[in-house]
Amino acid sequence: MIDFDANGKNKYYSLYKTLREDIISGKMRGGERLPSKRALARMLGVSVTTVMLAYGQLAAEGYVCPRERSGHFVEKLNGVPNLNKKSSPLYGVGKIPSVKSGEETRRYSCDLVKGVLPAQLFPFSTWARLMRRVLNDCGEHLLERVPKDGDAQLKYAISAYLFRSRGMEVDPRFIVVGAGAEYLYGVIVQLLGRDKPYAVENPCYTKIPSVYALNGAKCLPVAVGEKGMDLRSLGKLAACAAHVSPSHQFPTGAVMPASVRAGLIDWANSVDGFIIEDDYDSEFRLEGKPLHSMQSLCPSRVVYVNTFSKSLAPSMRLGYAVLPPVLYDKFMRSFPDGASSVSLFEQKTLAAMLDGGYFERHVSRLKNYYRTVRGKLLDKLAGKCEVYDTGAGLHLVARFPSEECDEKIKLVAAERGVRLKCLSDYLISPRPELDLCAVINYSGLTSEQLD
Amino acid sequence: MIDFDANGKNKYYSLYKTLREDIISGKMRGGERLPSKRALARMLGVSVTTVMLAYGQLAAEGYVCPRERSGHFVEKLNGVPNLNKKSSPLYGVGKIPSVKSGEETRRYSCDLVKGVLPAQLFPFSTWARLMRRVLNDCGEHLLERVPKDGDAQLKYAISAYLFRSRGMEVDPRFIVVGAGAEYLYGVIVQLLGRDKPYAVENPCYTKIPSVYALNGAKCLPVAVGEKGMDLRSLGKLAACAAHVSPSHQFPTGAVMPASVRAGLIDWANSVDGFIIEDDYDSEFRLEGKPLHSMQSLCPSRVVYVNTFSKSLAPSMRLGYAVLPPVLYDKFMRSFPDGASSVSLFEQKTLAAMLDGGYFERHVSRLKNYYRTVRGKLLDKLAGKCEVYDTGAGLHLVARFPSEECDEKIKLVAAERGVRLKCLSDYLISPRPELDLCAVINYSGLTSEQLD
Repeated sequence: MIDFDANGKNKYYSLYKTLREDIISGKMRGGERLPSKRALARMLGVSVTTVMLAYGQLAAEGYVCPRERSGHFVEKLNGVPNLNKKSSPLYGVGKIPSVKSGEETRRYSCDLVKGVLPAQLFPFSTWARLMRRVLNDCGEHLLERVPKDGDAQLKYAISAYLFRSRGMEVDPRFIVVGAGAEYLYGVIVQLLGRDKPYAVENPCYTKIPSVYALNGAKCLPVAVGEKGMDLRSLGKLAACAAHVSPSHQFPTGAVMPASVRAGLIDWANSVDGFIIEDDYDSEFRLEGKPLHSMQSLCPSRVVYVNTFSKSLAPSMRLGYAVLPPVLYDKFMRSFPDGASSVSLFEQKTLAAMLDGGYFERHVSRLKNYYRTVRGKLLDKLAGKCEVYDTGAGLHLVARFPSEECDEKIKLVAAERGVRLKCLSDYLISPRPELDLCAVINYSGLTSEQLD
Repeated sequence: MIDFDANGKNKYYSLYKTLREDIISGKMRGGERLPSKRALARMLGVSVTTVMLAYGQLAAEGYVCPRERSGHFVEKLNGVPNLNKKSSPLYGVGKIPSVKSGEETRRYSCDLVKGVLPAQLFPFSTWARLMRRVLNDCGEHLLERVPKDGDAQLKYAISAYLFRSRGMEVDPRFIVVGAGAEYLYGVIVQLLGRDKPYAVENPCYTKIPSVYALNGAKCLPVAVGEKGMDLRSLGKLAACAAHVSPSHQFPTGAVMPASVRAGLIDWANSVDGFIIEDDYDSEFRLEGKPLHSMQSLCPSRVVYVNTFSKSLAPSMRLGYAVLPPVLYDKFMRSFPDGASSVSLFEQKTLAAMLDGGYFERHVSRLKNYYRTVRGKLLDKLAGKCEVYDTGAGLHLVARFPSEECDEKIKLVAAERGVRLKCLSDYLISPRPELDLCAVINYSGLTSEQLD
């Protein structure tokens, strides 16, 4: 029996929870069709909208799959026991991690959540050619133990690339190569410790605090506005580090102005803390020149993190951090030898890609492509919502002031085969003023999808 | 000025420390020659043996390089500041992590510490051929996001391999692929938490507790004897898990008998804890059949960990864990999507290697090879020491009861161009009864080196 909350507003949520538990526990089996919205609404004595919202939430999270004109069907889950246990307390209610991996995308004709590069844009033949070349050129050297901070050739290639593309003067020595951003966040926790909390932007890419939490670090949310992180709130926390994305905040799109950058550096200096500069999509600034990095402003206080997953392919687990010398030193002392997390072969291939200029040519092609996508997208959105877009990367925020609630926005989109999330989905603590804002990540869109 | 301890026994250590600091701080420069032992001994009013021991320790740790007939020369360090800060408290005095990466091996003609497969044994042409095939066959599918637990094809291939080689019946679903053993230890901490300590074998591969410590977990040493971990001591700790290598303990070589295995499982059941079965070299049991794994005895309590770094190449960062269903479930719920730490390309190549039987052919060739190496080695050692060898893997213990101390054993070896460590180098807390035992890891030896 469904136990509706006293609060009428949460009816859809109770219904959604009950159905979810039935799916997880196996009471409802994969392939089974849910009752029609109208029938279930009548049966339970609730409105059709309530049922619609519950179904929409289940669909958005991959528990059911809507099929046009034939209703909603339960997805096959991987029959893993105990799925309905609570997840980590930081991410309690409402953030049920998806049970399936890599399959969600396929049920939607258009995915505005995952930022996966359309496959046809990847320079596959170049990459394959470089792999073959590395295999021939390096031969058995590829078997050697990789230094824990990464292959020297790749470190130099990254340093040179950062200079060419971002004007950053980075001593290649202080670069550490690692298997993707998540891995590098873990390294950061290992270097900065778990005694003091980490300030993270609210809202943010939820992977960030969840990876910190997995690594035993406590995260405290700090509101992020048009000008980036709120420094006054930050000052009140005894944080050891602030994780920010100053070039293009995800999901708000905010670009941190120089005054706030300076204030943040002052904060780090005054508390002997660090700034983690997450530069995840700075390559894709579509308007104007890339901004000066914070790392360039204060190399002794800033850990700069970036990856090639966004610009090359998510299947390549390759990122890097530029560490302040004191942290690099700690890394070299405390990490075990031979514990590089990326194979030498992949490091050499990427180095060849950077050194040969192939990567920059690829990024510049991508930027042209995304300028077209963005133009078409802005045309489509015109008049339907308020668009907040700084042109600094591959997502924008669309506000629908006349909609009822965020769930409704997602539901309407889902019924049209569009998967999207709202700013509220990325909040760690509530900020009702950010309601009714859809986050439109267009990095996975093809130009044809918008015709 | 050198400040000798009151305790005469530590004279060499004070000398070693002073010299080390001078090298790190740059007072003594790379390439500089140390004074002759005799001259320095006279200058300081200590015995030549004291100087010899200090130089030996410096050489063993890569700060100086002995050149035959011309003395000791300071190595070039990477001029990183603050190198002389203390390392993690768990590994305080005497365990100075090496400053250099991948270069130590070259200065010794014979390295009995690092277990790096001689390059000529790696099936390079097979590997390169498989890589080309994967590149052609999979094409753009290689760009897809990798499921966080690993590529399904590789998981099946590992499961089938474990059945063929070890008689293990493992549901491929519960396998998690990760970038090497160190990465997987981190995952284990993320799953089992940091509230309760982890029991580790004393002595052990020191990377193990240092990686746990980096991940914020506390380690408690439990003495390991001929029959593996001491269960009575284990029972007194409120540990959440015991990390053991039952097939072939490193470095003692002990093989855990069935009674102790059963006792360990009883322990895990009674405290609701887990056993981490580190099966790092079970492929290389040179005498008799491989032992039954603990994972097969109690899949709900055992996390089985193994890698391909030992049997293929250390530059390939590829390992896997077989998780109990409850932990697998937790992994799938709490880890962010798309966070696999190994690229799809490498996973597909390894899957092809396992499925095609190439890996097993390679291991069987290696075993024949190492049988020869071991035979020659035992001949060489005969009469010079007491050998403890169970034939269960690629290292053995040689006891030199008539030597003065462990430092002397290493020094004598270093002067002959041989790098080795003693059991005491792998201790977390002291066990004087294990003195005078050299650990001879012959996995990096070529047969010719023993002629």
